[in-house]
Amino acid sequence: MKVAVIGLGKMGLNLALNMKDHGHEVIGYDPSDQASDLAEKEGIEVNRSIGELVDRLPSPRTVWLMVPAGDVTETVINELTPLLVKGDIIIDGGNSNYKDSLRRAETLKKQGLFFFDCGTSGGTEGARQGICAMIGGDETKFKDIEPLFEDVAIENGYLYAGKSGSGHFLKMVHNGIEYGMMQSIAEGFDILGKSGFDFDYEKVANVWNNGSVIRSWLMELTGNAFSKDPKLDGIKGIMHSSGEGKWTIETALDFQVPAPVITLSLMMRYRSLEEDTFSGKVVAALRNEFGGHDVVKK
Amino acid sequence: MKVAVIGLGKMGLNLALNMKDHGHEVIGYDPSDQASDLAEKEGIEVNRSIGELVDRLPSPRTVWLMVPAGDVTETVINELTPLLVKGDIIIDGGNSNYKDSLRRAETLKKQGLFFFDCGTSGGTEGARQGICAMIGGDETKFKDIEPLFEDVAIENGYLYAGKSGSGHFLKMVHNGIEYGMMQSIAEGFDILGKSGFDFDYEKVANVWNNGSVIRSWLMELTGNAFSKDPKLDGIKGIMHSSGEGKWTIETALDFQVPAPVITLSLMMRYRSLEEDTFSGKVVAALRNEFGGHDVVKK
Repeated sequence: MKVAVIGLGKMGLNLALNMKDHGHEVIGYDPSDQASDLAEKEGIEVNRSIGELVDRLPSPRTVWLMVPAGDVTETVINELTPLLVKGDIIIDGGNSNYKDSLRRAETLKKQGLFFFDCGTSGGTEGARQGICAMIGGDETKFKDIEPLFEDVAIENGYLYAGKSGSGHFLKMVHNGIEYGMMQSIAEGFDILGKSGFDFDYEKVANVWNNGSVIRSWLMELTGNAFSKDPKLDGIKGIMHSSGEGKWTIETALDFQVPAPVITLSLMMRYRSLEEDTFSGKVVAALRNEFGGHDVVKK
Repeated sequence: MKVAVIGLGKMGLNLALNMKDHGHEVIGYDPSDQASDLAEKEGIEVNRSIGELVDRLPSPRTVWLMVPAGDVTETVINELTPLLVKGDIIIDGGNSNYKDSLRRAETLKKQGLFFFDCGTSGGTEGARQGICAMIGGDETKFKDIEPLFEDVAIENGYLYAGKSGSGHFLKMVHNGIEYGMMQSIAEGFDILGKSGFDFDYEKVANVWNNGSVIRSWLMELTGNAFSKDPKLDGIKGIMHSSGEGKWTIETALDFQVPAPVITLSLMMRYRSLEEDTFSGKVVAALRNEFGGHDVVKK
């Protein structure tokens, strides 16, 4: 089928190329000249505006967004929707908050448009070779775009998850789980480092990834990372986060689900952003107040 | 080579059969008649005592222990070692505490025996098809038994980890990581269940295991579990633990490594063993004291 991809960054371009490999006719748009040039070099027909992009699609149109969640997604959808007509389809493949996706599906439905929220996992490599996709939206209409997912997803790697919002909800929770798994792996290697044994972390990660209970793609990536930098001496332990972990915890709070591990994983990321902490000062000051314990002065 | 396996439970018997498949001559011993009978039916030559077992091995002897950690391992080693002679080899494939393994290696070395602590992962299926093994002990002597590990381990699934204790240390931390990964997965599905979406957990686990960042053997097992019982209605959420998680946290405490996720994973297991908690009563009572908030009376 003919598909438009808006957003030709690492994920979007790889996805476009993935579609192309499977015989789909892909046209694209990205506000960045650099991204557009790169996409054109890779053989993707790039348009100069969203309007031009939409004009080149036959009805019913299928537009796949691969842009950052939040304001950018909102802006693109607001620019895009007046150009679409009844029966056209928008797939949001980004990491949007599922509540935004629920709202967008509702609004677009009133205009006769179909909105699918598609949680996409697998990283840039997955986008190129085969994504893992969790899709929410109209079940009947999904049949029309299912062949596209059959092609761009890895084998058994897509799921029609249910009504609107369910795709991004699944992706949100997926990322929450990812936070906990990553922090758990990280704590384990931290303990190894203090053990006095002379472990080769790359070899440890590799053996743990072959036949053990904790074998996983994350463990494979752990081995890859140590193969490039045996003790990760070249980087700082600053752990950024992009939102889905926070939303997972907010959701757990809303539903009153105890989720201490996912929560602590995010808190440890926040801690990693600080050189020093005010909470540390408070505890140190209190230990000094009641017990005369030394504090470290600035 | 000719190898003796002591302990013919699920892990030991499967390992013995795995060795046999690879052309090793395996003889076994288990105090249980039932286990012995089953092993004999599977074609393993079973002996009536550890003494008989040792007599049937050529020097230097290789004895692989696959028995429960702690007292049982201690008892077996105490019975076994007086029967062995200089140059004989004991492999402890159980989940022993690495400190016990350090002590045993030290003691046995004085008797001219070689002790290898072998952390074994992969479950019963792994024992049969190919284990993941992390081995600590004498590096030179390891060469003599390495062919055995090449055979019983999955491809790239064994690691000579370093001096005595390092094998069981790695296995301990592996299990600590496993606790955190499992709790993280569990919290995610708990959140899904409160979402109002109608998720099919088996399908969710399966899609997450194909191409996603959190694909892992544990996610595969999660899918298996839901395939048998879609909402796990047939079981209670009581989570036992066998020791390695606790040791991992004790080790983190000794080394002053912050490991909140692994720690909370174990605490949640402890919580699951309680129908009600005294800490809950204390908090409820305090809320009542200062704010007149209702308590639930027995």
